[in-house]
Amino acid sequence: MPKDQLSPAATTRAVLQPIGLGRARITGGFWAPRQQRNAENAIPSGQDQLEAAGNLHNLRLAAGIGEGEAIGPVFADSDVYKWLEAVAWEYGRNPSEDLLRRQRELTAVVAAAQRDDGYLDSVVQLRDGDEGRYQKLVWSHEHYCAGHLIQAAVAQVRCTGDTALLDVAVKLADHLVATFGETADGKIRDVDGHPVIEMALVELYRETGTTAYLDLARWFVEARGRGIIADHGHEPTYFSDRRPVREATTVEGHAVRAVYLAAGATDVAVETGDTSLLDALKGQFAHMWATKTYVTGGLGARWDGEAFGDEYELPPDRAYAETCAAIGGIQWAHRMLLATNDPFYADAVERMLYNGFLAGVSLKGSEYFYVNPLQHRGNAHADNNSSPAHGRRGWFDCACCPPNIMRTLASLDGYLATTSEDAVQLHQYAESTITTDSTELHVETNYPWDGAIRITVAKTPSTPWALALRIPAWADGATVNGKPVDPGQYARVEQTWTPGDTVDLHLPLTARTVTAAPRVDAVRGCVALERGPLVYAVEQADHEANVDDLHLVDAPITAHHDPNLLDGVTVLTTQGRVDTPTEIKAIPYYAWANRGIGAMRVWLPRA
Amino acid sequence: MPKDQLSPAATTRAVLQPIGLGRARITGGFWAPRQQRNAENAIPSGQDQLEAAGNLHNLRLAAGIGEGEAIGPVFADSDVYKWLEAVAWEYGRNPSEDLLRRQRELTAVVAAAQRDDGYLDSVVQLRDGDEGRYQKLVWSHEHYCAGHLIQAAVAQVRCTGDTALLDVAVKLADHLVATFGETADGKIRDVDGHPVIEMALVELYRETGTTAYLDLARWFVEARGRGIIADHGHEPTYFSDRRPVREATTVEGHAVRAVYLAAGATDVAVETGDTSLLDALKGQFAHMWATKTYVTGGLGARWDGEAFGDEYELPPDRAYAETCAAIGGIQWAHRMLLATNDPFYADAVERMLYNGFLAGVSLKGSEYFYVNPLQHRGNAHADNNSSPAHGRRGWFDCACCPPNIMRTLASLDGYLATTSEDAVQLHQYAESTITTDSTELHVETNYPWDGAIRITVAKTPSTPWALALRIPAWADGATVNGKPVDPGQYARVEQTWTPGDTVDLHLPLTARTVTAAPRVDAVRGCVALERGPLVYAVEQADHEANVDDLHLVDAPITAHHDPNLLDGVTVLTTQGRVDTPTEIKAIPYYAWANRGIGAMRVWLPRA
Repeated sequence: MPKDQLSPAATTRAVLQPIGLGRARITGGFWAPRQQRNAENAIPSGQDQLEAAGNLHNLRLAAGIGEGEAIGPVFADSDVYKWLEAVAWEYGRNPSEDLLRRQRELTAVVAAAQRDDGYLDSVVQLRDGDEGRYQKLVWSHEHYCAGHLIQAAVAQVRCTGDTALLDVAVKLADHLVATFGETADGKIRDVDGHPVIEMALVELYRETGTTAYLDLARWFVEARGRGIIADHGHEPTYFSDRRPVREATTVEGHAVRAVYLAAGATDVAVETGDTSLLDALKGQFAHMWATKTYVTGGLGARWDGEAFGDEYELPPDRAYAETCAAIGGIQWAHRMLLATNDPFYADAVERMLYNGFLAGVSLKGSEYFYVNPLQHRGNAHADNNSSPAHGRRGWFDCACCPPNIMRTLASLDGYLATTSEDAVQLHQYAESTITTDSTELHVETNYPWDGAIRITVAKTPSTPWALALRIPAWADGATVNGKPVDPGQYARVEQTWTPGDTVDLHLPLTARTVTAAPRVDAVRGCVALERGPLVYAVEQADHEANVDDLHLVDAPITAHHDPNLLDGVTVLTTQGRVDTPTEIKAIPYYAWANRGIGAMRVWLPRA
Repeated sequence: MPKDQLSPAATTRAVLQPIGLGRARITGGFWAPRQQRNAENAIPSGQDQLEAAGNLHNLRLAAGIGEGEAIGPVFADSDVYKWLEAVAWEYGRNPSEDLLRRQRELTAVVAAAQRDDGYLDSVVQLRDGDEGRYQKLVWSHEHYCAGHLIQAAVAQVRCTGDTALLDVAVKLADHLVATFGETADGKIRDVDGHPVIEMALVELYRETGTTAYLDLARWFVEARGRGIIADHGHEPTYFSDRRPVREATTVEGHAVRAVYLAAGATDVAVETGDTSLLDALKGQFAHMWATKTYVTGGLGARWDGEAFGDEYELPPDRAYAETCAAIGGIQWAHRMLLATNDPFYADAVERMLYNGFLAGVSLKGSEYFYVNPLQHRGNAHADNNSSPAHGRRGWFDCACCPPNIMRTLASLDGYLATTSEDAVQLHQYAESTITTDSTELHVETNYPWDGAIRITVAKTPSTPWALALRIPAWADGATVNGKPVDPGQYARVEQTWTPGDTVDLHLPLTARTVTAAPRVDAVRGCVALERGPLVYAVEQADHEANVDDLHLVDAPITAHHDPNLLDGVTVLTTQGRVDTPTEIKAIPYYAWANRGIGAMRVWLPRA
């Protein structure tokens, strides 16, 4: 049976304790059908794609099954592990013999592929042999693949009780512990060009209690920014290796690498009580959010290097905003939330989740965007496998995003709520059941379409405790049980509870226009439309006028729910003009490009 | 002694005949000191850089001198050839024993490096041997290097009379003729990923009269866009190989590749009388100029792939606008001008020359920009060897631009004027002497600082002929001998001339604001300042207020010449504001980043 997502020992230093997936359960509303499609469409077709693309072939070859050469990119194994993690979380939500069989069969292959000393990376094993190990760590993704394997293993043991993949992970982690560290200790002083191992090792420490994993995670974090990658002859910015993490004041370089590293560093800071490291990460997150984040929560302004740009460099058309970067951003923000109980981070999770992340997957659940622009011109030319000008695609040559989406949707329940000594915090609002050691809460809501959220206390201890409800910063006029509450804070209802007690939270979902900071040159003279947590987009499919030429006129914005459009969305309508006045109809950004690819824009120029 | 730049036989089908470098001579004014610094600073230091970077080392090794391995990129030879071409043109302008010795010594090495059958590419010879020839033509730049060698050889024989490099070029071209073509003829049906060979072969045909070179150039142009590069497994857009040249309606992919190919195709169209190909090229140029060209004439909107973007995708901050692309753009526009006598193309040459090109070289002449943005933020981070955030640099890891600038400055005289049966056309205005078979003209002007241009006819036949003066499209209110003339046309003064006759052209240099097309989202709400052919920039060095925050107020713009600033520039001043009103001072865009690197912008937001 599913255990808590994080073991109790893990979080003694965090302010908030996570609630395991088995105990926070999305039961309906906005997200449940998306999780269902993830289970029914994405995960099975994902395995087919991994088969077709050669990822499974590589692992089977490394396991001694069949003959041939490795296929695909060096990080091919990681796609398999992310998929295995998704299967594990999904099994935790909805156990099925099919899911158990799929993961057990594949786990057996992975275990057979592992070398006797614990090393595992099928592509390196096949292409370079034992001598090739860790020779090109800047680009080889060996630790990156190891990290995703460890994350999958932790998910598997928590959700199925199976220890088969955990055994592989422990053996691999022990090998890493024996291999990497200070030169004086006879170890390799090197870091992977792509972080993720840091988060993974901390999680394995939480699962097993083995402090050597935490120590190695800390070592990897501390080794960063000390010249290792430059010594290999590479420009370090791309690899988040220009400055030590605790000295950096911003995020830079490859966006996914940067936020994965930051998330892992946050784990290390929490588990080691390293407040100065945590303070540095707070500063980096704040700077990223203020100067390098799209209104959608998208991260990464540059195609060149899939990278963060300079401050305020946020072009809507050439936004990269990789789906994986939004996922990494959510992971980092969630860890900062656990560490601080600052609702700013939960607001950030919400913005990334409903916009920058969710735009990366089709309504059907099995077509994806790798790149998530905020403007798409009608005649844009696709010159790249992952270009959004292709429309949503079933897979990519570089397929990091699809299985990352799968594992995120399958584990989404974990972002809803947390506990602290005398309180339960609700961070994200969804039709759900939240169970803690002593309480059970039922959340009823049609959020984000409707701002009414009712929490019923189904089980409670007799002693008083507090229900803390995040009031999003955009929620001017929010009320709890009819009384005004301040946005940007937690509204705390502290009392002695009786089973059946209810709390009514109301978040006003008035459509609003937002403008960018004046230094964001790329969208000068433009506004974006938002309602609740959703950023809206204007898409060619709803307009006869050419969206490339459309301007917004100052006029009221009306909202109405259309149950027949895009699986049911609340649309916004207002006035615009090209040469003559015309109606503008905006749909949630996440739903664009589900009717073919055409002109789209989030930022609308004012007439 | 220098001969005409193009041999008479070459241009029978062109509308205009070029005037060779020996006969069109810049004698003073704006460009003469730039050519002098090119000769005195850039060319000698360029040879040192080619030595330090290993380019000369490679050729010596291939010539059997010394031992070692090839150093640097696969196209290393081409940098040497561009430098040799610059030396040749410079020798043509100003013969010196030093320049003759430098090119003869290096030519001897190049000749010794050539294989017996004519093949020549030092890097491929050293790294891959004879078996490696043309195995990776998509990326190997073997034809690209050959093209630059041929161009250098033609320059050398024209300017020095030396045939040593021409002998190498002919042997290499004969080898290419024997090797590339239709499979049915037993040849390799392949194209180089990087065009330039097309232009070079046509020029060699003009020099030698050997039609096989023209035929091969035409074959390379026609083979493009027929699936060759896709068949090698590459996405063809980057390589200008998605559509046949005569079917393409725009430029796309890598900007330098695209304009080099177009320039070569223009040569082929002219020499073969292929009007449908020329018509296609007219359409491509017009589309490029209207939708994919910066106000500076800069080409290439994307760092990713150093490429043209979609229509109207022209971000000022992340403009790539590679210096080499401006040079290729000038080469293409000049060929279109020769083919059509349409002043639109001479206007284009002027815009690229004074802005997108000239910004690529420092006032001193020996520091360069590879990338030429139209906005630079004060705190921009350099994460790349060629990033402008480094400021101007003496050389680059990829050093295509510096020697390309050198050869362009050394051959600039060739862009001034042309002839046709009964007329001499002046396209670019500079203090100069223009000599044709029957006429000699002296041009006196301090253009572009002053709009007064006096042409004195020093030598003339007794029969009437016409002097055609380009009136730039921006020159509202221009006069010839006091009479108004229309901008965007040639003002034609046709008469019987007497030595000593003068024509006074006046181009009003009123400072003006320009706005971008409405679809250029990236500079919405902004204006740029221009005066005459110059685009202006606002640079941090002239302002206490933060240029990142500066807005332009509607106010008069005044111009005054400051002889002590930036080697003498006419500056523009007007009113702006940040929080409070402040003066804005604008300098010519070409002169930015000569006082260190800091915030700069061409497009100024309106308050």
